[in-house]
Amino acid sequence: MTKTRVSLAVVKRLPKYYRYLGMIEEKGIIRVSSQELSAITGLTASQIRQDLNHFGGFGQQGYGYNVEELRSEIEKIIGINKSYKAIILGCGNIGKAIMNYKGFKSSGFNIVDVFDHGDKVGNKIFDYEIKDVDKLDEYLAENKPEIAIIAIPTEQAQKVCDRLVEGGIKGIWNFASVDLKLPKNVVLENVHLDESLYTLTYYMNNLFDYPGTKN
Amino acid sequence: MTKTRVSLAVVKRLPKYYRYLGMIEEKGIIRVSSQELSAITGLTASQIRQDLNHFGGFGQQGYGYNVEELRSEIEKIIGINKSYKAIILGCGNIGKAIMNYKGFKSSGFNIVDVFDHGDKVGNKIFDYEIKDVDKLDEYLAENKPEIAIIAIPTEQAQKVCDRLVEGGIKGIWNFASVDLKLPKNVVLENVHLDESLYTLTYYMNNLFDYPGTKN
Repeated sequence: MTKTRVSLAVVKRLPKYYRYLGMIEEKGIIRVSSQELSAITGLTASQIRQDLNHFGGFGQQGYGYNVEELRSEIEKIIGINKSYKAIILGCGNIGKAIMNYKGFKSSGFNIVDVFDHGDKVGNKIFDYEIKDVDKLDEYLAENKPEIAIIAIPTEQAQKVCDRLVEGGIKGIWNFASVDLKLPKNVVLENVHLDESLYTLTYYMNNLFDYPGTKN
Repeated sequence: MTKTRVSLAVVKRLPKYYRYLGMIEEKGIIRVSSQELSAITGLTASQIRQDLNHFGGFGQQGYGYNVEELRSEIEKIIGINKSYKAIILGCGNIGKAIMNYKGFKSSGFNIVDVFDHGDKVGNKIFDYEIKDVDKLDEYLAENKPEIAIIAIPTEQAQKVCDRLVEGGIKGIWNFASVDLKLPKNVVLENVHLDESLYTLTYYMNNLFDYPGTKN
C-alpha cells in the first residue's frame, strides 16, 4: 500500500470512531456496517468507508466491520496500544486535573513525574512529589519520557518547551495560551481553553454564523 | 454592510488576534501594520487583512491598525466585552480546575454556581457550596445563567444537556467525551481532551502525516 498523507480532519475523526466502537463493543455487538456506524456517529456511511480506507480498508462489502478488530486496529493506528511515559510541567489547576484523571492510565499514559518551581518543589500532590524544573535537563537525559504536558503560565512556556525539545521529548500537549515554536519532528497538540471559550461566546453573539453541532 | 457567514477558521483565529493584540498593547505599542502582525502571529499579512475585513475593515492603507481600537473591536466581536453568568455541572477534576481559574473572571465570566449530586451536594469547594443537580430546573428558571459548563461523566451528559436546553441556557461548554445533541439555537463548544491526546499520539506515531505547528 502506498502511503498517502492523511488529512487533519480524518485524524481528528479517528478518536471518535475509537470511542463509538468502544461503546458498541461494550454492548456485545460483533459486527457493524458503515450504515449503522453512520446512524450512531452522524457521519455519512461513505465518509466512514473513505476514512477507514485510508488505513487499509478493514470492512468487507455486504458484511460490515468486525467491531473488536476495527477498534483494535484503530487503537494501533492512534498509537494507544503502547504505553507512554509522560511528565507534567506545572502543578496548578490544569496540572492537578491531569494528574488526577483516571482515564489516562487505562489508555496507557503514565504520568511518571510532575515539575514546578519555587516553594512548590517537594510538595506532595496526589501521588506525586513535585520535582524541581531546574533539574529538568538531567531528568530528561536519564528518564527519557516521550510526552510532556505543559500546564505552566504563558510567559514561561516557550523556554520550557525549548528545553523539552533539547532533551529529546517526542510530543508536547500544551495547555498554555501561547503558540509554541518547535521543530517539526516534535509533535505539538494544543488545548487552548480561552480560545475555545471565546469561540463559544462568538457564536452565542453571532448565531447567524453558527454552523451547528458537528460530529 | 451585508452580513456574510464567517467561516469557523476565521472565528477560531479571532481569539488569537485578541491575544496577540493584548501582548502588543501591553508593550505600549500604538499602531501595528498587517505586516507586523504577520511577523508575530505567523499568519500572512493578506490573510490578516482578509480576516479583519470580514468585520468591517478597521485598518487604513499605509497607516496600519490602532492597537487599542482593534483589540477593543475584536473584544466586542467575540462578545467578551459583556459579562456572562455561567454554571458548572460537576465538581470533579475539570470542574475544580475551571472553578479555580482566575482568567475567567477577568474576561467577564462569572461562575455563579456549581452543581453535582449525591454526597457532594452541600460540600464547599473553593468559594462554592455545591448545589443539587436535581434542583437544576428551578434554578435555571429563577437565575437564568447564559453558559453551562459540562464537566460530568459521559453517561449523564446528554440528559443534563437536555435539561439545560429546556431551561433556556444559551451556550454549552462541554468537557464530557460525548457528542451532545441539541437544537441549533443553543451553541455547543466541545473540549474533548481524550481526542486531543489521541491526535498527539497519532502524529507521534505517524510523523509523516504531521502538518507541523500551525498558528
